[in-house]
Amino acid sequence: MEVFSLINIGGTIAFAASGTLAGMQKRLDGFGLIVVAFATAVGGGTIRDLLIGRLPVRWIHDTSIILLIGGVALMTIFFRQRFARLERPLVFFDSLGLGFFTLRGIQEGVAANLSIPSCIILGTVTACFGGVLRDIILNEIPLLFRKEVYATACMAGGIGYFLLRPYLPAELTDAVVVALVFGIRTWAIRKNISLPQIEP
Amino acid sequence: MEVFSLINIGGTIAFAASGTLAGMQKRLDGFGLIVVAFATAVGGGTIRDLLIGRLPVRWIHDTSIILLIGGVALMTIFFRQRFARLERPLVFFDSLGLGFFTLRGIQEGVAANLSIPSCIILGTVTACFGGVLRDIILNEIPLLFRKEVYATACMAGGIGYFLLRPYLPAELTDAVVVALVFGIRTWAIRKNISLPQIEP
Amino acid sequence: MEVFSLINIGGTIAFAASGTLAGMQKRLDGFGLIVVAFATAVGGGTIRDLLIGRLPVRWIHDTSIILLIGGVALMTIFFRQRFARLERPLVFFDSLGLGFFTLRGIQEGVAANLSIPSCIILGTVTACFGGVLRDIILNEIPLLFRKEVYATACMAGGIGYFLLRPYLPAELTDAVVVALVFGIRTWAIRKNISLPQIEP
Repeated sequence: MEVFSLINIGGTIAFAASGTLAGMQKRLDGFGLIVVAFATAVGGGTIRDLLIGRLPVRWIHDTSIILLIGGVALMTIFFRQRFARLERPLVFFDSLGLGFFTLRGIQEGVAANLSIPSCIILGTVTACFGGVLRDIILNEIPLLFRKEVYATACMAGGIGYFLLRPYLPAELTDAVVVALVFGIRTWAIRKNISLPQIEP
Repeated sequence: MEVFSLINIGGTIAFAASGTLAGMQKRLDGFGLIVVAFATAVGGGTIRDLLIGRLPVRWIHDTSIILLIGGVALMTIFFRQRFARLERPLVFFDSLGLGFFTLRGIQEGVAANLSIPSCIILGTVTACFGGVLRDIILNEIPLLFRKEVYATACMAGGIGYFLLRPYLPAELTDAVVVALVFGIRTWAIRKNISLPQIEP
Repeated sequence: MEVFSLINIGGTIAFAASGTLAGMQKRLDGFGLIVVAFATAVGGGTIRDLLIGRLPVRWIHDTSIILLIGGVALMTIFFRQRFARLERPLVFFDSLGLGFFTLRGIQEGVAANLSIPSCIILGTVTACFGGVLRDIILNEIPLLFRKEVYATACMAGGIGYFLLRPYLPAELTDAVVVALVFGIRTWAIRKNISLPQIEP
């Protein structure tokens, strides 16, 4: 049984809502919106589970996650007019979810005895590839490949994890990693910072 | 060994032909058309098998399916001029295949002891995600996310399955599910019904 | 432990560099370029491993490949101005890598007791689908589906493998397959030959 913690719920809600909102801008129908909400919320963890061979993927046994995502998609659709006001909590949960999902990916890699670079990759994949799937489905070049300090925050969190783990207790390391990803991401949004595009 | 039944053949043929025809409109070469035919015909089942970890995927051991799809793609290419006339049987088989593949996905979920929502998801994925892959490869926003009563029919079939199974014999339930998906889909095509797009 | 041979390194370098260069033309940022380099270099093998269920995927245990691809992406970014001159060695390694990866895919299929058509499919998937993933991520219709004699060379190599294997020693068969794929691909580039597009 998963520890289905508050922060996991928050991140999943934010990811599902972000997928639904992005789909509405592309004029999807209700079914398409639910699929995009799913892909955004569980896509990263699904790709991670596929890569390390932990199958079946988690969410297929986790009815509460399935109902949660479906519910969030429906709520987002019904209350879409009022969503302008919700931008701040959404960004907050999205950044928190990013930190939490990064940590989850790293922990799965450590549990599978993977090397440090592979663990950092898994953390980044878990946190970011839901958004990549969302953009591929919506026929966009993935946003996070173009300018956002998003994956960079996850990689920084991953590097932080392996620098701190020898010196700190496990729980404290975990908390610092989540805080690091959350902090970098939030700071980059505030300052409107993006990675430079590289021209050929 | 799979029960390689007539209806399975019909659905696979229709899906392979639909992929080939869609690829021709995007000016693919012969190899590309064969790949798109494959992705359309086995893509849904492949994603289902990946999600539940039933690997290797089925078709890789099923040479008859491989040769069938390759043959359909070649036939579709050679006789493409006459395909206008074939639209009706294609739609017929496509809708029948949709029902059959939905049932297959649900049965796989039940065999793997999944919850009802997960089984309905697997049925819908099996039936619909070949077409989603086809549209992603061809650089389109998946058609079924935009307006078709397509996945909706599969979900209705899935709900019907779990409502009827406690009361009807297994074979009758199966037949009703296929008929339900086929009927909803055919009715929506006749009446030209589509889901409303949701605007932000 | 993998035989991490010179030719494998050459092919991986060429594929990683080709992904990075394609990403720069789409104005990706540094992180995006690294992801595309990865997807191009290990995407084909990853899809093959998923299809046959050999999980975790290989590269996740192969730190040297991870560092190699990351290094190639960075070098390609830093020396991008001088890359016009490198086109010839890149095409050379790309074609050689194509032959080698085709052989690898076929051998995996044979080791898994798959049928001849499935083995040829696996060889083609291993060699070509990194490029397909690259194009999907970059929001293009995959180049190899449109006009290149690319997958065709892989399939010819696969057919050659099963025609020659009963008569030649294993090592010689392997060498002929790599040479065949390399030769067809190089010849098609020289002569500027492409498959005809098929119009509906």
